[in-house]
Amino acid sequence: MSGRLAVVGLGPGDERFLTPQAAEALAGAEALYGYAPYLARVPERAGQTRHASDNREELSRAEAALEHCLSGARVAMVSGGDPGVFAMAAAVIEAIEAGRPEFRAVEIEIVPGITAMLAVAAKAGAPLGHDFCAISLSDNLKPWELVERRLRLAGEAGFVIALYNPVSRARPWQLGAAFDLLRGVLPAATPVIFGRAVGRADQRLAVVPLSEARSAQADMATCIIIGSAETRVVEREGLAPLVYSPRSARVAG
Amino acid sequence: MSGRLAVVGLGPGDERFLTPQAAEALAGAEALYGYAPYLARVPERAGQTRHASDNREELSRAEAALEHCLSGARVAMVSGGDPGVFAMAAAVIEAIEAGRPEFRAVEIEIVPGITAMLAVAAKAGAPLGHDFCAISLSDNLKPWELVERRLRLAGEAGFVIALYNPVSRARPWQLGAAFDLLRGVLPAATPVIFGRAVGRADQRLAVVPLSEARSAQADMATCIIIGSAETRVVEREGLAPLVYSPRSARVAG
Repeated sequence: MSGRLAVVGLGPGDERFLTPQAAEALAGAEALYGYAPYLARVPERAGQTRHASDNREELSRAEAALEHCLSGARVAMVSGGDPGVFAMAAAVIEAIEAGRPEFRAVEIEIVPGITAMLAVAAKAGAPLGHDFCAISLSDNLKPWELVERRLRLAGEAGFVIALYNPVSRARPWQLGAAFDLLRGVLPAATPVIFGRAVGRADQRLAVVPLSEARSAQADMATCIIIGSAETRVVEREGLAPLVYSPRSARVAG
Repeated sequence: MSGRLAVVGLGPGDERFLTPQAAEALAGAEALYGYAPYLARVPERAGQTRHASDNREELSRAEAALEHCLSGARVAMVSGGDPGVFAMAAAVIEAIEAGRPEFRAVEIEIVPGITAMLAVAAKAGAPLGHDFCAISLSDNLKPWELVERRLRLAGEAGFVIALYNPVSRARPWQLGAAFDLLRGVLPAATPVIFGRAVGRADQRLAVVPLSEARSAQADMATCIIIGSAETRVVEREGLAPLVYSPRSARVAG
């Protein structure tokens, strides 16, 4: 009996984004693990234990959930957005690879969810309608030089760029540096979308040209989408503008 | 009265991926538009008209739906996966920008969905756990030289690469050329995931090293994820291997 671990994507917040597959995985679990604010989104259920942990404890959280499974339990690890995109799925598999051999016998189900960039893009129009990339701006787990290199190559390739983890108290300057770098590669008028808490009651969306993008417009709950040179803004009287990247493209550079 | 158009992501197929927000948008529509196989996934509903169209008619389909809205109707355009990722949302906004001025008064709601790469990644483990990009391999709307340039820069940047529209009857050689190009940039052992119809009854998943990846393993319903040099495969006795990209990275190149 090695148990079973479901790594469940809750989507961006509102339960209208929670897929039936995710709801089923949560309902069938005897124990829930997760970062406290994500756990708080899941309604309490009789007989189900809860194991909340702090931010930046992904690996120990994953190990604790896997240990719990070894008793034969059905466990769910909750994750914001999609668990596979800068979230808990990679941490769980890292813990399996590096941990006790018994961890490899635990049945693993990754349950996808709506990741932040999809929710932000939908709110803004269709900025991800052409080739794009997603970059975590955190330099906790990779050198900043690598982030810079990827931003530069992404801009040169003509990718629309989604930025996750743009800023935190411990990383206050990285986003401003990223904007400065991209201003050297992309046109000044390139649309930049700041989507904060999209899908929640306090959601906020702002669109500014790259020349005016400032890191103070973002916080930990913000996902940022930076257009390519082809991305356009369609103005509408009395309605929010629609930002989109056309499906067709000319040769870049 | 300018009506309302919801562009609705159905996810990868199975209704367990359909979000409550998407189900609500479909239920509230007086008319449904879409590519016939996607429309066929939506249960019939009394009083709701259906307007199926063929593949590769995105722009005329979008125009027809917008025209319908001008009567004041609530219309839904169905899309596979997420409408914002190589799907109908960009086509709708292109039709608004280029079309009758009245189109700009139509209320637009884009309803996100689980896009193919998230479903394939979840089935395989967590290959998108680190920085990644998504590229449409179709050269119908962009020159092939641009696709090649992006593949090369993505490989050099250390992005995991998700390929949409890898192959079709009219585009038989592009995927093989893409694998050949990437074999010049990435290690021979780099894991390549072929996910076909993931989330449907006939789903199929295969993982091979880049050195052995062949275009014959893919068809129109396949989404391909090519790892970076850091992507790993965790073997498990009696269970499928887990493919993942670690959250941390060394400096590339």
